[in-house]
Amino acid sequence: MASLHFDLETTAAGSKARAGVITTDHGKIHTPIFMPVGTVGSVKAVTQQQLKQDVNAQIILGNTYHLYLRPGTEVLEAAGGLHKFNRWDRPILTDSGGYQVFSLAANRKIKEEGVMFQSHIDGSRHLFSPESVMDIQRSIGADIIMAFDECPPYPSDYNYAKKSMELTHRWLDRCFDRLADTPDKYGYTQNLFPIVQGSTYKDLRTASCEYIASKNAAGNAIGGLSVGEPEEMMYDFTALCCDILPKEKPRYLMGVGTPWNILEGIDLGIDMFDCVMPTRNGRNGMLFTTQGVINIRNKKWASDFSPIDPGLPCEPSQYYSKAYLRHLFVADELLGLTLASIQNLSFYLWLVAEARQHIIAGDFKSWKAGFVEVVKQRL
Amino acid sequence: MASLHFDLETTAAGSKARAGVITTDHGKIHTPIFMPVGTVGSVKAVTQQQLKQDVNAQIILGNTYHLYLRPGTEVLEAAGGLHKFNRWDRPILTDSGGYQVFSLAANRKIKEEGVMFQSHIDGSRHLFSPESVMDIQRSIGADIIMAFDECPPYPSDYNYAKKSMELTHRWLDRCFDRLADTPDKYGYTQNLFPIVQGSTYKDLRTASCEYIASKNAAGNAIGGLSVGEPEEMMYDFTALCCDILPKEKPRYLMGVGTPWNILEGIDLGIDMFDCVMPTRNGRNGMLFTTQGVINIRNKKWASDFSPIDPGLPCEPSQYYSKAYLRHLFVADELLGLTLASIQNLSFYLWLVAEARQHIIAGDFKSWKAGFVEVVKQRL
Ligand SMILES: [Zn+2]
Ligand SMILES: [Zn+2]
Repeated sequence: MASLHFDLETTAAGSKARAGVITTDHGKIHTPIFMPVGTVGSVKAVTQQQLKQDVNAQIILGNTYHLYLRPGTEVLEAAGGLHKFNRWDRPILTDSGGYQVFSLAANRKIKEEGVMFQSHIDGSRHLFSPESVMDIQRSIGADIIMAFDECPPYPSDYNYAKKSMELTHRWLDRCFDRLADTPDKYGYTQNLFPIVQGSTYKDLRTASCEYIASKNAAGNAIGGLSVGEPEEMMYDFTALCCDILPKEKPRYLMGVGTPWNILEGIDLGIDMFDCVMPTRNGRNGMLFTTQGVINIRNKKWASDFSPIDPGLPCEPSQYYSKAYLRHLFVADELLGLTLASIQNLSFYLWLVAEARQHIIAGDFKSWKAGFVEVVKQRL
Repeated sequence: MASLHFDLETTAAGSKARAGVITTDHGKIHTPIFMPVGTVGSVKAVTQQQLKQDVNAQIILGNTYHLYLRPGTEVLEAAGGLHKFNRWDRPILTDSGGYQVFSLAANRKIKEEGVMFQSHIDGSRHLFSPESVMDIQRSIGADIIMAFDECPPYPSDYNYAKKSMELTHRWLDRCFDRLADTPDKYGYTQNLFPIVQGSTYKDLRTASCEYIASKNAAGNAIGGLSVGEPEEMMYDFTALCCDILPKEKPRYLMGVGTPWNILEGIDLGIDMFDCVMPTRNGRNGMLFTTQGVINIRNKKWASDFSPIDPGLPCEPSQYYSKAYLRHLFVADELLGLTLASIQNLSFYLWLVAEARQHIIAGDFKSWKAGFVEVVKQRL
């Protein structure tokens, strides 16, 4: 079947923000888009039915590192790939496992060949290389797959950042080579997105963007940001990357972020986002709403029988009250985790859809300026 | 509005099993029925939407002890009762808190007036008396409310069982008196069910059934069984009670039980059941299915891509595979708890609906004999 393609529909006035449509073999994705994280093939506490009906998710993410360890590629291949295994029939993106290997695994060791690491589950030893990670992503079968990269910590010194970036570039060539040598496994096309690195050095980021752009991939990602640097620095490097990465391909800012981070990213020309924040914070009782940020455990909500989020067209968030959700959290009820996750994900999906409409309507910039203040406030 | 009434439709041939319809101000309940337990106003890990659409629950249970402690009667009254608070608009039954006070609370002390106890949450001291428990159940606002009783442990010596039963009877009179003195709070009728006690002594059970029957209540419950006695003994005492309790009123066997316990109970003339087993066992990975009992954590399901339960008309149980559900349990994913709970509750509701159809069709006895063997087997 066909490679992913991207139709750029509109560019906002006075902004780099754009509205587009990504077409994959599992359907279309309207950009800008937020992708809920489904680590081991499940977006935590939410059913695939709820993801479609309540959240309106268009694409979800899977983590190669986690899926490789559990259930493993043997089970995934026997199922016919992750779409068949978890019954999510819309697009899926998998990361390369690089970030997880560096942050989760024990005793990882980086060499030219790849990374030796021990599983965080049972301590077993494994090698992730550009070749093995492409093979694993072939077995998982996501529509969009990510290059195997090294994501240096913040801060990194210049020499380390430069060497790491060069290694990422060499690994990228090996990823493309491996993919060219291995066919799609399940009858639809998998599309490799390379990842810009270069830490917080302008010349390195520039060089990395130029190298990545030269590969003429179906889409391009910006990695190594949102790893602890100041927000302004993240925005500056995002702007730098967007100026170099091709306009006619989707741009994916990895691991970002808060609702206001996402609005800034859209303003700078980013089309795709992912982050564990809506689900993780939701499970801790922190809600993102159309009115602002809520700590639902707070006593002030105990007798507030208004909907969880009156402004959100999401059935559970309209159906249940703040008082009931607070009660579920105070009483440690599992349903609280589900309802808070649905609220936050629905809000993120609503936010990018709303941004898209304002880009198309031509008033993105002024809408953003006002709405950032609303979503940031603590209620 | 109107008191609950019960229309007995059919009695099975060669069995005491019956099919009926209970009508409450929140709608009809087709009997025999299983009632999912929603301890603090939430059936654990399942949304009210899923309870209706996937499980087909007709009535759910709430626990007075838990709801009294959290969110408390003040919040429940401000909400307009539990139905408005948790948005379950079908019938609700609340227990009296007696069982929880005896099994959960610390330092409980039984006196003629009632039971002094300390909360299992914060150690605070409270008194449950027939009067206070009726008042609390008025504030909760369930359609069916249970008498405040003492449930003696198994085994209990004869003298203790006799004194306890007599106390339960005196408390019952106080429950009816209190209810008569306090109006319905929310514009619909609450119906008190008295509870038969008497431990495992035939003369005491007989005396208790006769006393309870004399109250001419809208329905009658059998308590103090399924507390550790042998199954055959539970069946014998259930049979004894069903012979004395009036035919024209629904009979509720409290806290029972496995699927085969429920089929036996139906055979003996029971109309209503509740139990935490489907949800609690589900959260531990033990599934009740139309083919038998499954430990979903077992490695044998790792690559079994057949539906969770091919025989059950429940969307999630058809949509997701055993292999995926096993993976969710092995990876400690919250979605596993939800899917297993939905499977087990759907199975219980399907089981009683199936029993009802066979009672009406006239072949309950032979269907039961065959199906008990199926549901009991370990797969
Ligand atoms: Zn197109
Ligand atoms: Zn009728």
